[in-house]
Amino acid sequence: MTSIRSKIFVNNTKAADLSKSNQLLHSIPEEIINMFANSANIKFYQKGQSIYFEEEDAEFFYFIKSGLVKLFHQTMDGDESIIDILTHKHVFGEDAIFNNDTYENSSEAVEDTELLIIPTSVLKEQINSNPKVALAMLSSMSKRRKMQEREIEHLTIQNAPQRVGCFLLRLCPKNKDKNIVINLPYDKTLIAARLRMKPETFSRSINTLRQVTKIRIRGSRVEIDNIQQLSDFSCGTCSSTYPYKD
Amino acid sequence: MTSIRSKIFVNNTKAADLSKSNQLLHSIPEEIINMFANSANIKFYQKGQSIYFEEEDAEFFYFIKSGLVKLFHQTMDGDESIIDILTHKHVFGEDAIFNNDTYENSSEAVEDTELLIIPTSVLKEQINSNPKVALAMLSSMSKRRKMQEREIEHLTIQNAPQRVGCFLLRLCPKNKDKNIVINLPYDKTLIAARLRMKPETFSRSINTLRQVTKIRIRGSRVEIDNIQQLSDFSCGTCSSTYPYKD
Repeated sequence: MTSIRSKIFVNNTKAADLSKSNQLLHSIPEEIINMFANSANIKFYQKGQSIYFEEEDAEFFYFIKSGLVKLFHQTMDGDESIIDILTHKHVFGEDAIFNNDTYENSSEAVEDTELLIIPTSVLKEQINSNPKVALAMLSSMSKRRKMQEREIEHLTIQNAPQRVGCFLLRLCPKNKDKNIVINLPYDKTLIAARLRMKPETFSRSINTLRQVTKIRIRGSRVEIDNIQQLSDFSCGTCSSTYPYKD
Repeated sequence: MTSIRSKIFVNNTKAADLSKSNQLLHSIPEEIINMFANSANIKFYQKGQSIYFEEEDAEFFYFIKSGLVKLFHQTMDGDESIIDILTHKHVFGEDAIFNNDTYENSSEAVEDTELLIIPTSVLKEQINSNPKVALAMLSSMSKRRKMQEREIEHLTIQNAPQRVGCFLLRLCPKNKDKNIVINLPYDKTLIAARLRMKPETFSRSINTLRQVTKIRIRGSRVEIDNIQQLSDFSCGTCSSTYPYKD
């Protein structure tokens, strides 16, 4: 079983990009995931493959070793309402233990993805017997809640180009304010869906950002000469200021 | 100290109205709050009085015995961005223990309000030593997160009258579908702010609901002859169906 433990943490270029940013603050510490290693199995999912469906009985929760996972609801008229796009080191499906052991949403691999699959029964045992696990879960949940609060605020008071600008700012290294180069963590259609805008709104927003803040975007490469211009434009109406603390 | 314990749960007419609905599903069980009774103090806040400010050092968290509390951020241009309106039996300020012991938002009494004030140090001790407390906190946080997910979905895909309709549906008793009378839990300006719309948008939405779903609203009294009409109108584009499970 040590082999699984040693295999938990792998390198993933795009994910490594993300981990430099603020995106992983609400991930679960490696130390905690290691506690589950003896009960975990590894499973591969191909791009587009479903992991579980909403309201299905939940026997497992999942830890992302590598890849990208989309959480979503199906709306009454058949559309997808995306809740989150998760990258490596994130846990999902664990909420089911507070939802009568059924999944609260559907999940799907949006890239080839490698998951650790851990029985929810083991999670319940650990929360009951190990305060460290309970604290890590609480801390992670609290941070995700905070991110949701921010998202609600943004949907209410920011316009679309400001929301795209904010998304880019959160990918930037905190210790640099000039000549920044970042890579978009996933394709633009998915970013648009994550930001809850139509692809054409996303494209128009990118054009606005190009004109107003002088950023350059080619493919997935984004060049930001002066971060102040981007943050002045994006954060004006918001309760957060750049560099973000959360 | 038994006197405080016995005083924790008081009657409150508006709050009692709310407790019939789904609004209290994410509150903390009485049994758990009783564990803090020996360390708790009671404090009264007048309508409009501030409880704490964002980024202030957090020594206490709060349990609402009676009244109404508003959680909010201050935006850069001086506006308030309301996060939540909480009623009796809700806990707030507890997130500070995951935020370097500083409050994540500001809070204010929006009615005369009676709070239990409990040191965050006691909460930390309890989470560390008592799995029941950790589980109750996790369960409450998970449900609040789910409500936020729903709110994000609504902001994205529902129009304003549908969001007002959904707010009303959540106040309705689950076991009745005809001739329902409910009372609005707080004044209309506050409901508008909670639903993240301007008062005039809220008024127009109420008028649309009157015309399309035949509901009647006079002051804080709402009469709904046929709940099907209201749910058909409000839930059409959403991933939830009435009666709501969450």
